[in-house]
Amino acid sequence: VKNYRLILEYDGTDFEGWQLQAPGRRTLQGCLEDALSRIAGHPVRCVGSGRTDSGVHAEAQVANAHLETRLAPEDLLRAANANLPPDLAIRELAIAPDAFHARRDARSKHYRYRIWNHPVRSPLRARGSWWVRGPLDLRAIDRALPAVLGEHDFASFRATGSSVRTTVRRLLRAEASGSAGGEVALDFAASGFLRHMVRNLVGTVVEIGLQRREPEDLRRILEARHRSAAGATAPARGLTLVSVEYAGWES
Amino acid sequence: VKNYRLILEYDGTDFEGWQLQAPGRRTLQGCLEDALSRIAGHPVRCVGSGRTDSGVHAEAQVANAHLETRLAPEDLLRAANANLPPDLAIRELAIAPDAFHARRDARSKHYRYRIWNHPVRSPLRARGSWWVRGPLDLRAIDRALPAVLGEHDFASFRATGSSVRTTVRRLLRAEASGSAGGEVALDFAASGFLRHMVRNLVGTVVEIGLQRREPEDLRRILEARHRSAAGATAPARGLTLVSVEYAGWES
Repeated sequence: VKNYRLILEYDGTDFEGWQLQAPGRRTLQGCLEDALSRIAGHPVRCVGSGRTDSGVHAEAQVANAHLETRLAPEDLLRAANANLPPDLAIRELAIAPDAFHARRDARSKHYRYRIWNHPVRSPLRARGSWWVRGPLDLRAIDRALPAVLGEHDFASFRATGSSVRTTVRRLLRAEASGSAGGEVALDFAASGFLRHMVRNLVGTVVEIGLQRREPEDLRRILEARHRSAAGATAPARGLTLVSVEYAGWES
Repeated sequence: VKNYRLILEYDGTDFEGWQLQAPGRRTLQGCLEDALSRIAGHPVRCVGSGRTDSGVHAEAQVANAHLETRLAPEDLLRAANANLPPDLAIRELAIAPDAFHARRDARSKHYRYRIWNHPVRSPLRARGSWWVRGPLDLRAIDRALPAVLGEHDFASFRATGSSVRTTVRRLLRAEASGSAGGEVALDFAASGFLRHMVRNLVGTVVEIGLQRREPEDLRRILEARHRSAAGATAPARGLTLVSVEYAGWES
C-alpha cells in the first residue's frame, strides 16, 4: 500500500461539491474513490486539501489516497483518467511519503473569482464566471481590499450557520485585476479559509465596485464580526481553486 | 417592420446546430425565433450568416430578422436576452438597412479551432477544445498551412455526401499559434467555407503535427480533390465562429 498525491482539475458545475454524501449524489470525492477503487480492487478513501462547494471549480486541487496496485504511477494516472467523467481529471499523480496528508499538510490556498462585467451576459463564460451588469469601479475595489490582508477575525464573512473553533484567518493576498466592462478577476490566498469566505468577500467587494458601499466599509464589516454586516454570497460558478501550497512545493 | 442586425454568442455544446429542424430539436435559430416571436407578438424568421454544426460555438455569429416592435433597440436586446437560455445571448442589436441579409451580404468569416495538446485531458477546457494527447510539431504545421492559402478547389475537405455548386473557395488566413504541450489554436478565414471544411482541414493538419503525414501532404491532398485523400474530421467542440465581415464593418 502506497500513499499517492493527486493533483485534480474539475469543472464543478455538475458536481454536488467535493465531499462524499448520501449515495446517489454526484460528488468529486465519490467519483474519484469509485475510479481508484475499481482499479485497485479494494475500497479507496481520498482526502482533499479542503472541500469545495457545489459549482466551484479547481485547476489544481490536491488530494491523497492510500492504495495497492502494481501499476507504475504513469499507468495508474492513465487508468484513473479513463475511469473518470469528462468534467474531472487527475493532472498529476506521484508516490508521496506515507505520512503526507492533503488537508493537514496544506500551507495555503489560492482562489480566483472571475466576473464578467458587461451589460450583456456571456454564454461562453457562463459556467466559469459571475455576470455583473453594472460597471465596476476597480479603483474603489483596489482601495478597499488591503483592509482584509493579514490576520483578522473573519466572522463577518463566514457561512451562515457554520460553527468552527476559530474564525481567525490570515489573508496573504487580496487583489483585483482585469478591466471594468470586461473580465475582472479577484485573487485571494490564505493559510485557510472559512466556508463561503471567498464568496462572501466577493459579494461585499462587488457592492463596493458598484458604489453601493464605500471602500472603507470593507474594514468596518470586518470589524463588526457578524455575518449580517456583509453583502450577499457571490455565486459558486465564479470561483476556482487555483493552487494549494505545501512545504517545499505547490500544486 | 424593421430589419434588425444581431450579433450572437453561444456555447454550442447543447444545441443541435444552427438550423431550424424538426420540432423538439433544440437549435439556435429555433431558440432565437421563439424569443423574438414572443416579444414581437408575431412569427419572426431569423437568417444567420451561415449554419454552424451541432457543438460548434460562436463569439460573434451574425443574423438578421424583420420584426415589428415599439421597443427601442436597447430594450429589445434586454428583453430578448431575458427570453433566451443561458447558452445563447444577443451581444449587439441594431436597426439595419431593409435590404441587409446576414448570409448573402457576408464577405468573409473567421473561425478558430482550439486544441488542448497535453498528455492529460483538461476538464475545464473540455467543452471548447479538442484533446490531442501526442505533442504537436508546430513547425511542421507552419510549413504545411500556406499551401491552402488563396483560391483552391477544396473538394478534398468538404463534408462526405454534401453537394454544392462549386467547391472552389478562397482562404484568406490559415495560421497556427500557441505552444505544443499546451493550448494550440488554428485560425482560418475565408470568403466562404464548405460544410466541415475547417474541421477536415484541422483533422489533416493535426495528423501532420503528429508526424503521421508530411507537411507536403496538405498540398497533395488539396490537389487530389477527393474527400478520401484527407484525414478524419476534427470534433465540433473545438470550433468557434469568431467573427463575420461585411462591407464596412465586422462582427
